Parts: sequence; C-alpha cells; structure tokens
Amino acid sequence: MTARHEEIAEELRRAIDREEYTVGSLLPTESGLAAQYGVSRGTVRQAVAALTAEGLIGSRQGARRVVLASRRSQTFEELRSFAQWARAMGREATGRVLAQRYRPATREDAVRLQLPAEAQVLHVLRVRGLDGEPVLLERTVYADWIAPAVEAIEPDCPSVTQRLYDDTGLVFAYGEHVIDAVAAGAEDAQILGVRRSGPLLRVRRVTTTREGRPVEWSDDRYRSDAVSFSVYNSTGNNALARKTAE
Amino acid sequence: MTARHEEIAEELRRAIDREEYTVGSLLPTESGLAAQYGVSRGTVRQAVAALTAEGLIGSRQGARRVVLASRRSQTFEELRSFAQWARAMGREATGRVLAQRYRPATREDAVRLQLPAEAQVLHVLRVRGLDGEPVLLERTVYADWIAPAVEAIEPDCPSVTQRLYDDTGLVFAYGEHVIDAVAAGAEDAQILGVRRSGPLLRVRRVTTTREGRPVEWSDDRYRSDAVSFSVYNSTGNNALARKTAE
Repeated sequence: MTARHEEIAEELRRAIDREEYTVGSLLPTESGLAAQYGVSRGTVRQAVAALTAEGLIGSRQGARRVVLASRRSQTFEELRSFAQWARAMGREATGRVLAQRYRPATREDAVRLQLPAEAQVLHVLRVRGLDGEPVLLERTVYADWIAPAVEAIEPDCPSVTQRLYDDTGLVFAYGEHVIDAVAAGAEDAQILGVRRSGPLLRVRRVTTTREGRPVEWSDDRYRSDAVSFSVYNSTGNNALARKTAE
Repeated sequence: MTARHEEIAEELRRAIDREEYTVGSLLPTESGLAAQYGVSRGTVRQAVAALTAEGLIGSRQGARRVVLASRRSQTFEELRSFAQWARAMGREATGRVLAQRYRPATREDAVRLQLPAEAQVLHVLRVRGLDGEPVLLERTVYADWIAPAVEAIEPDCPSVTQRLYDDTGLVFAYGEHVIDAVAAGAEDAQILGVRRSGPLLRVRRVTTTREGRPVEWSDDRYRSDAVSFSVYNSTGNNALARKTAE
C-alpha cells in the first residue's frame, strides 16, 4: 500500500506536470495543502521533502515554496546525462542504437573534437525514451580515442555515460550546449513519431573531460511536447559567469 | 579609420557567427592568429581582449581560448534583458509595441504573478529586433502594481527594463525560464516574417524583484534562424544548484 504522503507527492508532481502550478510560481502553504488534501501538516511536509529532493520545488519564500521544474523540464544547473536527468525526475530512461559506423573526421568533427584531420570517428544514431516513449534522437560523434569503448556497449544500454565511467573511468565533466528550434526532417519525424517539419527542440553540445579534452559532440533533437529546459538565473555576476570570465 | 585590432576582432566575431569556430571549440593560439592575419601578437591580444569582454570567448585552455558564444547565441549565465544582451554582443536592439491592453487577471496570471483574482493586469504584444530585423515576439503580462509605469513608456522604447529602472527604481533580479520549441501561429508568422507552422524557439519566463515578487510573465518566441541559447555547465553541484537547493 502506498503511504498517504507518497500519494500526495504524486498528486503534486502531476499538478506541476499539468502546469496547474507553473514553474516559477509558488505552491500553497503547508497548511493550505494540508486542508486541501485533508491530512496533517506532517504528511504534507513529507510529500514536500520528496519533491525538494527531486529538484521539483525549491527553498521556502515566506511560508510557501517555489516550483523550480516539472518532470518534463530539464535544468541546466549541472551537466547531467539523459539517464541521470530521467532518474532524478523519477522516470525510466531507455536507449537504442539505430545505426553506428566509423567515418573519417569531417572538418567540423576535427575542429569540435580537436582531432587531426585523418582521425576515424564513430557516428552513432540513438533514440532515447522516457517511460518507453521516444522523446530524443541523438546524432553523436565520438572522438577516435573513446570510440572503441563506445562501440563495445550493448545497443540498448540505458546510460552510456555511466557505462563509459564503469568501463574506462571517463568522466564527462563540462558541457557546452547551444539550444535552438528546428523543423523535423524525414528521419526525425519517422523515429520520434512527430509531424514532418514540425518543431523540435535541438541541442548541439560538446562534452569534455575535466582537462577540457572533447569526448563527443552531438546534435540532439527533443520532442517539444515531451521535454523542455528550465533555467533559473539572476542579475549580475554569479559563479557560473565568473567561471567563464578571465 | 578602424584600428587593425578592431578589424581582427570583427573578423573573429564573423568567423564565430559562421560557425567556423563553433561554441565549445578552441581558437588557434595567439601566434597562430598572428601568422594568419599577418600582425603582431600584441595586436591579436587586443582583438582577443575585446571578444573576451563581450563574453564571446573565455579563459585560456593551455595556449588557446574556448569559444563560449556566438552573437546569435544568448547565454543564461546571468539574467539579462534583450537590450542588454544585444548591446553586449555589439548589436542594436529595437522594440515596438503592437498592442497593449488591460484585462482582468486570468487564473494563470493570478498564479504566476501572485495577484488576487480581481487584479487588472496589462497585456503587451511587442516585437523586438536586432539591427533592425524582427527576431522576437513577446506576449508579456505585467502585474497591476507595475502596469501604469509600463503603460507610460513610449511604444518604441528599446529597453523596457532600463526604463523601468530609471523611472521607478525597479530591478529585475531573478528569472525562471522554460525553453521549448513551438510551431509558429498565424500572428507569429506574419510579424516575424517566417513560415506558418515553422519552428520557433519559445521561452516562457517569470521575472521577479530581489524580494521574489513577480513583476511580469511572458511568452517569448524567437526566430530560430536568428537566435539560439547557450549554456555552459559542469558535473556536480555548483553555486547555481546550491542556490536553489535547501
């Protein structure tokens, strides 16, 4: 049997998903929620603690808490793999390689991955799912020095990042992401099950080791009805800004 | 006459815009650039300093510098108004109000802006341009307490944020942004000059004062061929993550 506080946590998650409480807005007070669900404030507090741990809601503002994210929204506060993000949101990540081949580095590959022009890179087309539904199509190019380890991974591995760490000790430490919107191409539409030319959320990213060595670059296309990104920021310099300044 | 280092700075900006140097990749070394442009390393250093100040390139990695952003890419390291972002990138921001009216707060307005249900909010439809070209359509709802100050601003004011600060001392301190992709509607397509149903980059945001009081919420739609967003992050907790945690 599910405990009452777990039921209430799930109700709150769904209300956030439905945008009944939108990102940036405040939840009702503890006593307001207790009255609404007909439970004690202690029970509400347990439910709220679960959502806080999941990163869905933040610190108190007066008697209330701010909604930071919904389960369809990925924050960029830290670099997280798709699988890590899904797990943090209580959802199951799946992955499946559709095609994989070595190719000589293009000029773009060589620049982005800091490789000599003659390097052989590994191109992987992979579809990722949330709770079994395809939401992301990745076109990833891996540097020659990590390609054999990637090639050895089974095609339905849910977390390539975790597997590479387990197998080789590689840590994806830094990520640079460029986000825009693109029209779904024929391949995108077929694999993601969306209308051709419809809007997709695209992220082009380069991921590097702690030493700044590029491991992979990728063109990732998300179904926009399934995933969004959230960013919370403030005026003036913060630590992230300082990190990239001189 | 333009100084040589200014010419080289502009060449580098254009190379980044053309994605000859992509975000996340490294520029050549100072001596490499000096050889390429046939100038002294001192001249290269002046050009590089200009791009660093603009936030386009970051700190040194070995002898080279990482490309952090292109002029079409907006970072989320800090909360910046459209006009502030354009200026930092050396481009001119324009704005024009197309429609503006008071209306009773909807339930969504009241929740997002923390207003009583009977409040009158100000809805503004505004097109924003970069160097004269329309790139952003904003549908903004202002809280009742700031609406009269917004209404008093001339329709072609290039920076509403700056004007509200000058007129009322209001500081937009925190922003929560939810980013996704949407198909252009009829109004979007007509005003932005894009194909109907084509992809637009959407940001839904709530901006608050230092005290966390919501000032406005907005549905902003960007032409994706003109603007992208960039995010640079790392694994593990950073200051931003800590700020939103308990």
